[in-house]
Amino acid sequence: MSISYREVKADILRQITQGDLAPGSAMPNEVDLAVSYGCARATVNRAMRELADDGIIERRRKAGTRVRQNPVRHVRMNIPIVGQEIKELGAKYRYALVQCKAEPAPNWLRARMALKDEDRALHLTCMHYADGAPYQHEDRWINLSALPEAEQHDFSEVGPNEWLVSTVPFTDAQISFHAVAASGIVADYLDCKEGDALFQTERTTWLEGQTITFVQLTYRRGHRVTMQY
Amino acid sequence: MSISYREVKADILRQITQGDLAPGSAMPNEVDLAVSYGCARATVNRAMRELADDGIIERRRKAGTRVRQNPVRHVRMNIPIVGQEIKELGAKYRYALVQCKAEPAPNWLRARMALKDEDRALHLTCMHYADGAPYQHEDRWINLSALPEAEQHDFSEVGPNEWLVSTVPFTDAQISFHAVAASGIVADYLDCKEGDALFQTERTTWLEGQTITFVQLTYRRGHRVTMQY
Repeated sequence: MSISYREVKADILRQITQGDLAPGSAMPNEVDLAVSYGCARATVNRAMRELADDGIIERRRKAGTRVRQNPVRHVRMNIPIVGQEIKELGAKYRYALVQCKAEPAPNWLRARMALKDEDRALHLTCMHYADGAPYQHEDRWINLSALPEAEQHDFSEVGPNEWLVSTVPFTDAQISFHAVAASGIVADYLDCKEGDALFQTERTTWLEGQTITFVQLTYRRGHRVTMQY
Repeated sequence: MSISYREVKADILRQITQGDLAPGSAMPNEVDLAVSYGCARATVNRAMRELADDGIIERRRKAGTRVRQNPVRHVRMNIPIVGQEIKELGAKYRYALVQCKAEPAPNWLRARMALKDEDRALHLTCMHYADGAPYQHEDRWINLSALPEAEQHDFSEVGPNEWLVSTVPFTDAQISFHAVAASGIVADYLDCKEGDALFQTERTTWLEGQTITFVQLTYRRGHRVTMQY
């Protein structure tokens, strides 16, 4: 039986890892590789395509295919729903709705969400607890022009994130990670001191060019997001 | 000409997005899909495989293929080298080596890097500037048992990250994002106040099971990591 594309890919990767194919050097051409592996050219092509997708080699129209100088390393990070995140920690999850009201969007939010003058927003504040201790403070705005049904929805039992995921499951989003000093209000909810350094993520979500929601998630002191790559 | 797997994938994705195929519902089988698209079964299979890889559908041995309830969303984030990151901001990059000395690893680091009693570590402190202003403080330890050549290397012109990437290009790593209160020393380097909330990443890098390096990167006030997904 002939060699598989996975075996070809693993063998090329081994040569790169061990330095037989140095960073920046040209890759042998696919026809020659197919001959040396005794396989079809399509098999080599698939292996090369995956190595390019993985950021290990780069294909340039004129310069040919080369081993990358600095391999592109992608982190694949799952975007969890906070309840799932807490359950995966082995803790009991509790949700509380603090506030939910439709109000005119403040100017900073209008700019941020690209809202029009007539757009109204639903402002929600929620708390998420792990084993009874504050875990995450959620401050969310939903664009009521995009999702008018949000205004009638009851968020007292299930948080807006879960509702949004089931209502508008496919969206584009931008997420940012940063540090903030706890405001007095957030410090009170998260049981820490005003000014404490807290990890915060902001997420803006669009559906077909229209902004659906903007959320600030502020985590309890010491929270970390950890990934392997 | 026959329909491509990309067109099949796009059409299925459209049906899921528009709700014709609801979250949790069973996908039609591949043979039926191939008949309805007038294409080879292999074409449908490739489209389905990519949808599964993207976390849109899930394939279970007994339950068959279904539309996922909560699509898995992966962030693909590039791990940049700080000099490239600063140049991409359109700023001038400057590097400074603050300290470089071989010393016994402190206990917390021994545990963290899984060092043996006899292992020595090279401790480096570096600063990275954007247009002359402090951008990132780097506090790095390199395991000299794994990389003895680091002790003789001159890090005064080029930072240890760039050197490591070219010396040990393929590694496993764990990265974490969190917030820290600036220590007096770091505040001094980053030109902020002690206790200010700063964004920090920690990275541990292994090669074939051996820890190569552990680094804490602390960013200037207001730094954000932003991703699309």
